[in-house]
Amino acid sequence: MTKRNAFYAQSGGVTAVINASAAGVIETARRHRARIGKVYAGRNGIIGALTEDLIDTSKEPAAAIRALKHTPSGAFGSCRYKLKGLEESRAQYERLIEVFRAHDIGYFFYNGGNDSADTCLKVSQIAEKLGYPLAAIHVPKTVDNDLAVTDNCPGFGSVAKYVATSMREAAFDVASMAKTSTKIFVLEVMGRHAGWITSAVGMADDEETPIPLVLLFPEIAYDEAAFLAAVDAKTKAHGYCCIGVSEGLSDASGRLLAEAGGKDAFGHAQLGGVGPLIAARVKANLGYKFHWAVADYLQRAARHLASKTDLDQSYAVGRAAVEYALAGKNAVMPAIARVSDRPYRWKIVEAPLAKVANVEKKLPRDFIAKDGYGITPKARTYLGPLMKGESPPPFRDGLPRYVRLKNAPVAKKLAAGFDV
Amino acid sequence: MTKRNAFYAQSGGVTAVINASAAGVIETARRHRARIGKVYAGRNGIIGALTEDLIDTSKEPAAAIRALKHTPSGAFGSCRYKLKGLEESRAQYERLIEVFRAHDIGYFFYNGGNDSADTCLKVSQIAEKLGYPLAAIHVPKTVDNDLAVTDNCPGFGSVAKYVATSMREAAFDVASMAKTSTKIFVLEVMGRHAGWITSAVGMADDEETPIPLVLLFPEIAYDEAAFLAAVDAKTKAHGYCCIGVSEGLSDASGRLLAEAGGKDAFGHAQLGGVGPLIAARVKANLGYKFHWAVADYLQRAARHLASKTDLDQSYAVGRAAVEYALAGKNAVMPAIARVSDRPYRWKIVEAPLAKVANVEKKLPRDFIAKDGYGITPKARTYLGPLMKGESPPPFRDGLPRYVRLKNAPVAKKLAAGFDV
Repeated sequence: MTKRNAFYAQSGGVTAVINASAAGVIETARRHRARIGKVYAGRNGIIGALTEDLIDTSKEPAAAIRALKHTPSGAFGSCRYKLKGLEESRAQYERLIEVFRAHDIGYFFYNGGNDSADTCLKVSQIAEKLGYPLAAIHVPKTVDNDLAVTDNCPGFGSVAKYVATSMREAAFDVASMAKTSTKIFVLEVMGRHAGWITSAVGMADDEETPIPLVLLFPEIAYDEAAFLAAVDAKTKAHGYCCIGVSEGLSDASGRLLAEAGGKDAFGHAQLGGVGPLIAARVKANLGYKFHWAVADYLQRAARHLASKTDLDQSYAVGRAAVEYALAGKNAVMPAIARVSDRPYRWKIVEAPLAKVANVEKKLPRDFIAKDGYGITPKARTYLGPLMKGESPPPFRDGLPRYVRLKNAPVAKKLAAGFDV
Repeated sequence: MTKRNAFYAQSGGVTAVINASAAGVIETARRHRARIGKVYAGRNGIIGALTEDLIDTSKEPAAAIRALKHTPSGAFGSCRYKLKGLEESRAQYERLIEVFRAHDIGYFFYNGGNDSADTCLKVSQIAEKLGYPLAAIHVPKTVDNDLAVTDNCPGFGSVAKYVATSMREAAFDVASMAKTSTKIFVLEVMGRHAGWITSAVGMADDEETPIPLVLLFPEIAYDEAAFLAAVDAKTKAHGYCCIGVSEGLSDASGRLLAEAGGKDAFGHAQLGGVGPLIAARVKANLGYKFHWAVADYLQRAARHLASKTDLDQSYAVGRAAVEYALAGKNAVMPAIARVSDRPYRWKIVEAPLAKVANVEKKLPRDFIAKDGYGITPKARTYLGPLMKGESPPPFRDGLPRYVRLKNAPVAKKLAAGFDV
C-alpha cells in the first residue's frame, strides 16, 4: 500500500466539540503511519485548500492534539463558503484536485453539515472523473441536528445540554422574582429552520423540577392569539412563565418573525432577534414584566458544559472517518445509529453521502405537543441520552484553559494562486 | 439567655449563590438551638414579613438545606420592594415589628444589596425606638459588586467567572469564523451603573490566551468615534474583535444608550438592550459582520459555573451573621476583607450598616485602562481570586439537580392583614 497524505477541513458554524472530531482524525491517522503520511488541515476550512494555505498538523505535539478534545470552536478556522454544482463551480473543484495532487493527498476529511456533505460528494465525483485516486469522507457536525440518516449530529448534544441547563437556571431566578418583578423570561435559541434545539429547552422542565414553559418551534407557524393565551394561562397558574423561542420562528406565510437589522413582523425597526420581539409582544398584550436573553454563540461555544455523550460521539466519527478511508471507502459519512434507548447504546454506521447531502431533517411533529408549545415523551426519550454526562475542561485561575495550536504553514508547491 | 426565633429574607435580584448564604444562616442557627428557636423565612422577601406570610424552615430536612449550597436563585422568593424613610414608610416599619413580636423574632437577617442594607438599618432603629429587642444583621449580596466597605460582594465572583468564561469561549468561536463571516462579537453584561462585571469580561483575555477585546464601561462616557476606531484597529490587526458592553453604558450627558422598549440613542425604535445597539453601530460604520449575545439572567443564575471562592464567602457571611447576632451585635454586616492577594486570603470583618447603606461603589478609574477600553493589572489582581475554583452542582441525566424546598407556611397569629 502506498503512503499518502490526508487533508482535513472544518466547515460552517463551529461547535463546542468539533475539535474532538479533529482529534479523532489526527490521532487515528497517527496510529496508521504506514498508510497515512501527514495530516494537513485547511486554514479557514476549504478556503485553505483552494488557496493552498495548508497547516501541517504534524508540527503539533500529542498533548496539543489531545487538548483539542476539551477546546471549543474550530482550531484551524472554518468558513462559510459553499461550492455549487460541478459545472457551476468547476474551477474550484479542479483547483482542489490540483492542490491535493501537489501535496499527494489521498484522503479528504470534510467536517461539516448538509452543505459540506454535498461538497464532499462532489469532490469524490470530480476526483473520479479526473482519474485522481481519493477517499472523500464526510465527518458530521452541526448544532442544528438536521442531518439525515444519522440519529443525531455531533455538536447538538452539547447545545441541548446548555440550553436546557440555562433555561432551568433562569427559571429558578424568575420564580424568585415573579411576585413583584419579572414574570416572563424569554430565551432565544439557534437551530435555523429545525426545532431540535428548541425542543431541548423543553428538557429544563421535568417531574422533579416542573417549570411552566412555552416553546415556539420553527415547525409551527406563529399564532399570536394562541401563543398569548398559552402564556397567560401558565403565568396565572404558576406566577411566571418561561418561553423558549427558535431564531427560525415564522408566521403562517413562512416569513421569519425577526431578521437582524430589518423590520420586525409588526413593522417596527429593530436591531435584535426574535427573543426581544416575542418579549415585547407579551408585554404589549398581557402587561407582564419581562426579561429576555439571546445566548447566540455562547450556546454553541460552551465547552465548559459539553455533553460527554456528544464529546465521545464527536471523537468517534473522526476516528471512524479515517478507518473508513483506510478500508477503501469513498463518498460516505460515519453516522450515529441508536441501538437502544434504555440503556442508551449507539454505534457508528456507514451512510452514503448521496443520502445525506442537502437534506434537512426537521423535528418530527410527534416530538411536539399537540398544542404546539411543548415536547412529547417521545422527544424526551430521544433527547435525554444526548445531553448526558459531563467532561469539563481543565480550569486554571478560575477559567477554562483552551489550546491554541501553532498552525504551522505547509510550503506552497503551486506557482499560481487562486481567488476565493 | 432567652431563646428567640429568627427571620431571614432575600431581597432584590437573586444570584447563583445567595442560597448558600441562606444555608449559612440556617445551618448555623441549627447549631445554636439553645438560643435560636426556629428560623422563619419571608415568602418573597420582606413582603412575606409585612403580610405575615412566613415559611417555617424547620420543616426542611438537613439534606435540603445543604442542597441550597448548590441551588441558584432565591429559595424562599425575593422581591423588589423598597421601604423608604422611617417617617415616609412608618406604617411598614411598625408592621414589621408587629409581625416580629407576634412570632417572637429576636434576630433579623436581611440578605441583599444597598437598598436592603438601608432597610435593615432602619428596622434596627425603629425596633430600638419602640423598645423591641432585635438584632438586625445585613447579609451582603449583589452581582453588581457595588457595596461599600466589603472588598467584594457575594454573588459577584460567580458572574465574573461566567462572563469571562463565556467571552473566552465565544472569542474562540469568532476567531474560527472571522475569515469569511462574523468578525465582531458583542456581549452585553449586567452591573447597572458599576462596571465591575464589565471588568470581569476583560479576564477572558490573558497572556496564554490573548483575545482582542474592547470593553465599554458605564463609568466611561460613550464616545462613538473613539470606540469605532478602537474596534477597527483590533479587527484589522487580529481579524476579529470582541466587545463587552455594560447595560449601564451612557453617553456624555449621562443618558443610558439603551432602554428596553424605548428609542435608542440614535432615534430608532428598538426592543433590545445596548448589546444589539452597539453591534448595529459597528456594522453601520465599519461594515463588519456581527453577532451579539445578551446573557441577562443566565449570567446570575449560572450555578453550574459558580466560583468556589464566591460560594465559600456567601456561606461564610450567612454563618457570620448568625454569630454576630448571638454576640449581641446589631445594625452591622459581615463584610469580606482581603488579607493578601497572592496567595489570596480573606476574612470576615464587621461593618457598621451606616457606612454601607445606600452607598454605591463604582469601579475605580485605575482598574480601567487609560484609553477606557480595557482593564489594568490592578484590576486583574483584584478580580482573579474572586473567580477561582469550581464547585459544580450534582448532575443527573445530563442536567443539574437543584432543590425546591417545601416552604411550609407558619400559621398566622395576627388578625389584620397588610396591603403591600
